[in-house]
Amino acid sequence: MIDQVPTLAQLIKALQQIPYLASKNIYQLTTYFLQLDPEKIEHLCTVLLKARAKIVPCSICYVWKEFDGACSYCDAPGRDAKLICVVETWQELLTIEKTGGYQGLYHVLGGVICPLDGVGPEELAIAPLIARAQSGVTEIILATNQTPEGEATAAYIARKLADTGVNISCLARGIPVGSSLAFMDRLTVYKAIADRRPF
Amino acid sequence: MIDQVPTLAQLIKALQQIPYLASKNIYQLTTYFLQLDPEKIEHLCTVLLKARAKIVPCSICYVWKEFDGACSYCDAPGRDAKLICVVETWQELLTIEKTGGYQGLYHVLGGVICPLDGVGPEELAIAPLIARAQSGVTEIILATNQTPEGEATAAYIARKLADTGVNISCLARGIPVGSSLAFMDRLTVYKAIADRRPF
Repeated sequence: MIDQVPTLAQLIKALQQIPYLASKNIYQLTTYFLQLDPEKIEHLCTVLLKARAKIVPCSICYVWKEFDGACSYCDAPGRDAKLICVVETWQELLTIEKTGGYQGLYHVLGGVICPLDGVGPEELAIAPLIARAQSGVTEIILATNQTPEGEATAAYIARKLADTGVNISCLARGIPVGSSLAFMDRLTVYKAIADRRPF
Repeated sequence: MIDQVPTLAQLIKALQQIPYLASKNIYQLTTYFLQLDPEKIEHLCTVLLKARAKIVPCSICYVWKEFDGACSYCDAPGRDAKLICVVETWQELLTIEKTGGYQGLYHVLGGVICPLDGVGPEELAIAPLIARAQSGVTEIILATNQTPEGEATAAYIARKLADTGVNISCLARGIPVGSSLAFMDRLTVYKAIADRRPF
């Protein structure tokens, strides 16, 4: 049936190219757009194009900012410019910001080193980080995720930073707040014991 | 951070209105669009608007068709116009078409009766189905899903069709092809025994 309605086939193909959309939802989403108010489709298009044109990564920390605006972190008064937290994407940055407990700057890598996906150190914002480290920074927190790729990226950056004399730290590993010890995996409990601290 | 980049906030809000998108993927999708080639965004917008303008439901069976084109079923030669299969959405229609074993026409209801969601019989294409039933149709297959709402919708339609003299049927209930009896639920096995057929 779809072959006989070429415009529909074209719409489905265009929607299939949007990532993070479960393929089983494509038909429901197609129905949604076919029944949506054309003005709302136009609004979505305007917003998409405007965002694409106006939002750029900060040239220092690679966090999204308005093309003609200031960076929410690099240009913010009262933040500790000597402390940099390295995250994979701005989603992790938002998670850290939600705590309200971090007042340093950030550095968004834009992903992790993953040779299988063709992502090498050159594809990430690692060289600019090394350059930043040499301009009065005292500590760099490596807050990549605890996946094999995240850990490998952190190790790579740590090696590159070794000569700069900057203190390198990572997030504490241990029992999450509110968790029962009995339900924790072995490695987490091991880390929690090894890294125990005074009460 | 998002509050300080209004264009970004606007983009996230627009993407959040798209259904069938897991909220945890919104940030990844935002990143995808911020890095996408502007030409590809424009292509997506063109396709969306063109599809919205050119695709309409067939005035007889409510299957999507080109505005100026023929219906893939109602206008197709060689299909049995005396047989109508009633489905909830065109996604179920595609599932039936994939079998290649059905040569009758269709009728897309556009959903199921669900008072909790504010969907009554008037919101669905039920009245046009009753009208169609009175124009030389001999059998109507009620192929709604076996959910409480689907079954209730089928029962409602069957009651409405009672006076038309049309044969009403539903899909066979039984053991799916290739399944082991031991893993089947009680009700399916019960139906399979009750509706047993000559070998």
